[in-house]
Amino acid sequence: MKALRFENNRLGLSDVPAPSREGEALVRVLLAGVCNTDLEIARGYAGFEGTLGHEFVGVVERAPGAEELEGRRVVGEINAGCGRCQWCRAGDPRHCPERTVLGIVGRDGAFAEYLQLPAANLLPVPDEVPDARAVFTEPLAAACAVAERVRLEPETRVAVVGDGKLGLLCAQALKATTGAGVTLVGRHDSKLEIARGRGVRALKTEELPVSFGRCFDVAVEASGSPAGLATALKLLRPRGTLVLKSTFHGTTELNAAPVVVDEISIVGSRCGRFPVALELLRRDAVEVDALVHEEFPLSEGVRAFERAAEPGVLKVLLRV
Amino acid sequence: MKALRFENNRLGLSDVPAPSREGEALVRVLLAGVCNTDLEIARGYAGFEGTLGHEFVGVVERAPGAEELEGRRVVGEINAGCGRCQWCRAGDPRHCPERTVLGIVGRDGAFAEYLQLPAANLLPVPDEVPDARAVFTEPLAAACAVAERVRLEPETRVAVVGDGKLGLLCAQALKATTGAGVTLVGRHDSKLEIARGRGVRALKTEELPVSFGRCFDVAVEASGSPAGLATALKLLRPRGTLVLKSTFHGTTELNAAPVVVDEISIVGSRCGRFPVALELLRRDAVEVDALVHEEFPLSEGVRAFERAAEPGVLKVLLRV
Repeated sequence: MKALRFENNRLGLSDVPAPSREGEALVRVLLAGVCNTDLEIARGYAGFEGTLGHEFVGVVERAPGAEELEGRRVVGEINAGCGRCQWCRAGDPRHCPERTVLGIVGRDGAFAEYLQLPAANLLPVPDEVPDARAVFTEPLAAACAVAERVRLEPETRVAVVGDGKLGLLCAQALKATTGAGVTLVGRHDSKLEIARGRGVRALKTEELPVSFGRCFDVAVEASGSPAGLATALKLLRPRGTLVLKSTFHGTTELNAAPVVVDEISIVGSRCGRFPVALELLRRDAVEVDALVHEEFPLSEGVRAFERAAEPGVLKVLLRV
Repeated sequence: MKALRFENNRLGLSDVPAPSREGEALVRVLLAGVCNTDLEIARGYAGFEGTLGHEFVGVVERAPGAEELEGRRVVGEINAGCGRCQWCRAGDPRHCPERTVLGIVGRDGAFAEYLQLPAANLLPVPDEVPDARAVFTEPLAAACAVAERVRLEPETRVAVVGDGKLGLLCAQALKATTGAGVTLVGRHDSKLEIARGRGVRALKTEELPVSFGRCFDVAVEASGSPAGLATALKLLRPRGTLVLKSTFHGTTELNAAPVVVDEISIVGSRCGRFPVALELLRRDAVEVDALVHEEFPLSEGVRAFERAAEPGVLKVLLRV
């Protein structure tokens, strides 16, 4: 089968055998999304070699022990645990020390004709959610996961810094799932407009009123840039919480003095649970269509990566 | 009166008028302690000019509206708020945006014959606590304050990284006040021995068993060094909490990727409340005598600062 792989420090399309691990489900991929993590891996920052891709929707070809899934259209949670450690026993393999992660750690990913995951990771997609929305389940779940790490209530003032894919999903998801007062802070009118269309207050960084200084309870860093990190810190009230949602590669300069003086909490957030995200998509509660910039066939995967890396480009999809 | 002041980028002894703000208590200082924050200010890192010092024990000369304090031996909480903002109305001026802080922000400090504070900041010292212990109330309160920022219970595994004054106080205070399982991690046998004498497990960094990797729920960074910060991060389990207790000046290199991947929380912690610290001192529940390296008269304050800045030196006191 065809697979878009990162090997020997190079991204390219390969012909490889379809995966055939016993005991796992086999999924025929329909559509997959390119994430910034994929771009980081393809730059050699993450130490992963193999087939990339972790955002997908596909059809189950085979699911030993879960035959009811066969033929169903599914999305899949990307962490596969050992099944024995304390995390796995608690039903949450996201921090299993022996986990593999689809297309990220020790497991071939979704930019291929077929992928494998444990059947327990797969969730049927409701009929009313088309492929081009279902493919957003994974990043939308990651956006919702912020609320697992910090208490968000209707009176909580939340700033999301960064108007890329992640910021747009975080701002919409947090408003929709928690009712918190969310302000998206970004640099591009056209992107901020997407959030405004769903009732999210959205402001350009330079338009931030002085009165916004140090008035937010929570700031979500979704820009991936040190400038965004600094902006997020400046928006927080004393004892506020900064959520690090972007993965930075290498070391980041952090001014620790205000963290101590203002007793800020900095909280990392990674993967989320899928059901809440699927339900948001089913209810059409968040705008994802406007986030799709372009779709490429898998055979043009390398071009798709080049496009996804261009400034200002939102989601690039791969049709298998 | 004599005062040890930092002015025009220079530390020196001056003759200045005694403070005479109306409505505040006047305290004759008996003994004061030199803190790393004082050393940072004297290096010009903190932007403060005036009389240094915020750790003290003294005798109340005058306390308008709180005459029962007059003649009493006291210690004093160092943050003086506006009395009107939400923080002050909640009885906690530590984050008042208009606060002054004794010897640190907008208010002359304790390295002088007299200081002033609002009478509400002063707490009588129990007779059984001698001056040379009472002077540790402020840093001990700051050590106890870690427990305000992260939940510590008997089953919580806490690592304190750094065997200086701050680390020794944190390790002892957190064990004594919360019953948590505390391990002090440091580099100097003689200092670790002080903690061991009070039943705290203490290990040299290079002696840390491999099994300690990623097994602590909480790590308190009390070394003030980037190496200590890195060690503290490595000790934490996924979703563990790093407490930043030291103030770093300038920017610090932070490897943010593991913070996101392992969903670490980083929590800043600054000043504490005095009653719990005074009670620890009254019960002799923490060793502070062994932390005193040397005592200087106020007139030799500049020499005292030089001594306090030498590697390996713990607490230096100033006798007024």
